Amino acid sequence: MGISLRAQNLPVSSIRKLIPFADKAKAQGAHVYHLNIGQPDVKSPEIMLEPLKDLDMNPVPYAPSLGTKEMRETMANYYHNLGYENVSYESIAIATGASEAIVMTLFSLCDVDDEVMVFEPFYSGYSVLAQMCGVKLVPIETRIENGFHIPQREVIEKAITKKTKAMLFSNPCNPTGAVYKKEAIDMLADIAKKHDIVLISDEVYREYIFVDRPHASLLPYLSSIPKHIVVIDSLSKRYSMCGLRLGSVLTQNKELFQSINKIATGRLSAGIIDQFVGAQAVNVPEQYFKEVQAEYKKRRDVLFEGLKQIDGVEVSQPEGAFYSMVKLPVENAEQFCVWMLEEFRDNNETVMFAPGEGFYATKGKGVDEVRMAYVINCDDLKRSVELLSKALTQYTSG
Amino acid sequence: MGISLRAQNLPVSSIRKLIPFADKAKAQGAHVYHLNIGQPDVKSPEIMLEPLKDLDMNPVPYAPSLGTKEMRETMANYYHNLGYENVSYESIAIATGASEAIVMTLFSLCDVDDEVMVFEPFYSGYSVLAQMCGVKLVPIETRIENGFHIPQREVIEKAITKKTKAMLFSNPCNPTGAVYKKEAIDMLADIAKKHDIVLISDEVYREYIFVDRPHASLLPYLSSIPKHIVVIDSLSKRYSMCGLRLGSVLTQNKELFQSINKIATGRLSAGIIDQFVGAQAVNVPEQYFKEVQAEYKKRRDVLFEGLKQIDGVEVSQPEGAFYSMVKLPVENAEQFCVWMLEEFRDNNETVMFAPGEGFYATKGKGVDEVRMAYVINCDDLKRSVELLSKALTQYTSG
Repeated sequence: MGISLRAQNLPVSSIRKLIPFADKAKAQGAHVYHLNIGQPDVKSPEIMLEPLKDLDMNPVPYAPSLGTKEMRETMANYYHNLGYENVSYESIAIATGASEAIVMTLFSLCDVDDEVMVFEPFYSGYSVLAQMCGVKLVPIETRIENGFHIPQREVIEKAITKKTKAMLFSNPCNPTGAVYKKEAIDMLADIAKKHDIVLISDEVYREYIFVDRPHASLLPYLSSIPKHIVVIDSLSKRYSMCGLRLGSVLTQNKELFQSINKIATGRLSAGIIDQFVGAQAVNVPEQYFKEVQAEYKKRRDVLFEGLKQIDGVEVSQPEGAFYSMVKLPVENAEQFCVWMLEEFRDNNETVMFAPGEGFYATKGKGVDEVRMAYVINCDDLKRSVELLSKALTQYTSG
Repeated sequence: MGISLRAQNLPVSSIRKLIPFADKAKAQGAHVYHLNIGQPDVKSPEIMLEPLKDLDMNPVPYAPSLGTKEMRETMANYYHNLGYENVSYESIAIATGASEAIVMTLFSLCDVDDEVMVFEPFYSGYSVLAQMCGVKLVPIETRIENGFHIPQREVIEKAITKKTKAMLFSNPCNPTGAVYKKEAIDMLADIAKKHDIVLISDEVYREYIFVDRPHASLLPYLSSIPKHIVVIDSLSKRYSMCGLRLGSVLTQNKELFQSINKIATGRLSAGIIDQFVGAQAVNVPEQYFKEVQAEYKKRRDVLFEGLKQIDGVEVSQPEGAFYSMVKLPVENAEQFCVWMLEEFRDNNETVMFAPGEGFYATKGKGVDEVRMAYVINCDDLKRSVELLSKALTQYTSG
């Protein structure tokens, strides 16, 4: 018994595929700096975890399929605090991470072989989620010279076909760090209306913006094109709680919400203990984000300034999230990453990045790029840049 | 923007579809006995929840995609204690509930429009999960007169086509309570080998058996047909922890496991706090299951003996799990269930069941049936049977 064609065609995660090499390096006693995965070392708000000590829940029941009322209201309340007063918890479904929220949305909007536009490079997980849904991702190029910003209207409209059902993007963008401008989002909203396409905005990095303009969320467009707006969210990055599997999908498109509800009941519920923890988010003080944001900004600066000094490295300054897509002066970045884990050591240390190819749908693109996640402290980041610099010298001269 | 055809064709959960009617009854002050959903009132082992008080996990990181080593070993250890020594944690992937485990398996084995055989009636959630995967469920009839046991070999082989990739069943069976016999499972194993079909056994009710024969798990067949065996599991029912979203899939089929691994990395991880709780299962004493099993057996007896007394009701004695599929002397059981919630009151009480149709793939079947979950205490079960009896009298005479 073999496996299905679609399973054979599932991409391997760029972010995790080199883990066996890292494990081997560690087993040999080397220290590996992990810039491959967006798992922050920043502390979660203790005020969210503390109540677990007094959890009185026995037996541990299913949560309602759409999420506990407390958790849904916590999300609504979060949006209200951002100034979006018209969001009701009744338009919000709680999912097991943003990943499940995206699957629920893509399945509901697209039949098999329908198309969803993405700005390339895009978060590599989207490829797996789209493949699970039998949906084709249609990449629209963004360029390092433009800071990976959204291209001209013509470029996007040229990619639209009869099968185009939606556009999916993260803003701030994983993996590029681009923070899209209000005018660009206005343009997307106009395209969505004109071509009857749903915009799916993955806003899980909303708090991490290092430029002097507000986040251009899709939420304000609920008033003008309510049926064409989906906002995906997650608590993973916002509260440094990746292991809490809590995401959400917000839409005022009733048919879409009904379909999400059917999927949600089919898989019963998201975790009720995670939702208990997640609902404590209402108590997190504003100050928490200010501190975390300041910390990421410092890291961004350390990484960007460091990378600029390395000969042959191309990088654009990330404006948000905690990633940077970086072009290396090597032919094949994946082979270089493997080499760093297998052979390169400096004072018995090395560094790990995510190879760039997995962040592209266009064959051959991203081969000389890596994604770096600046989720480790500034000293470790400096050392990582130094390691990269030494490794490149050795690799390109060897 | 409308939604996809496949989303329009998603079935509505039989188990939860009448909840709005129940909510309305409650808002009117009525008490509703819930036999519609398999959510036990039995206590979870406190020894699993207690360690949450001392949880020291900040930040809350992703778990490994296949599950924490502790959780995977806890599952392996559980199988070892059942006498299946040859099961390694390396063949076990932790999923977000048995539902996700089934999706991972079906997607990996089947392309769109491939077929999976099920014994009808089957767990209604399978219909949603199969629809998510674009897989066709091919029902094989089981009959109340035979206690819903597995039919003759010919009946099964007749249903096999070129598109048949797997057979999915729960044993003990939700919704019928049938506990399949060793000889029947032997026969399925032989069919699997002959026709190159994967057997997927959902064994989440393994502990709840009220007949005097051991559970005929698929695990022993790992030694003879390792590539054709998948065992699905979950902690929800075993430990009365439905709200803990922890399932697992066990297979020694390497290609299949690799595909599951790719899906698992695509959605990042199952919840790490749930896995922390789940891994405490190693400390649950044998005595816990004995007590819980004795309690369910009592309930089974109360329900079965009660139902037998009602004129026109057909029921077979459940041998395991905590469900019974019951034929009612009404034309349309769903309408009757709605009527009970909307109009029938006795001492301001009423009762809720899951309409039978959703447990069938064959159109028109199960229309006069309901599934009852005996997950409430014996006194409440007695009262529920009494309410049903009175309601039927009133309904059929009215």
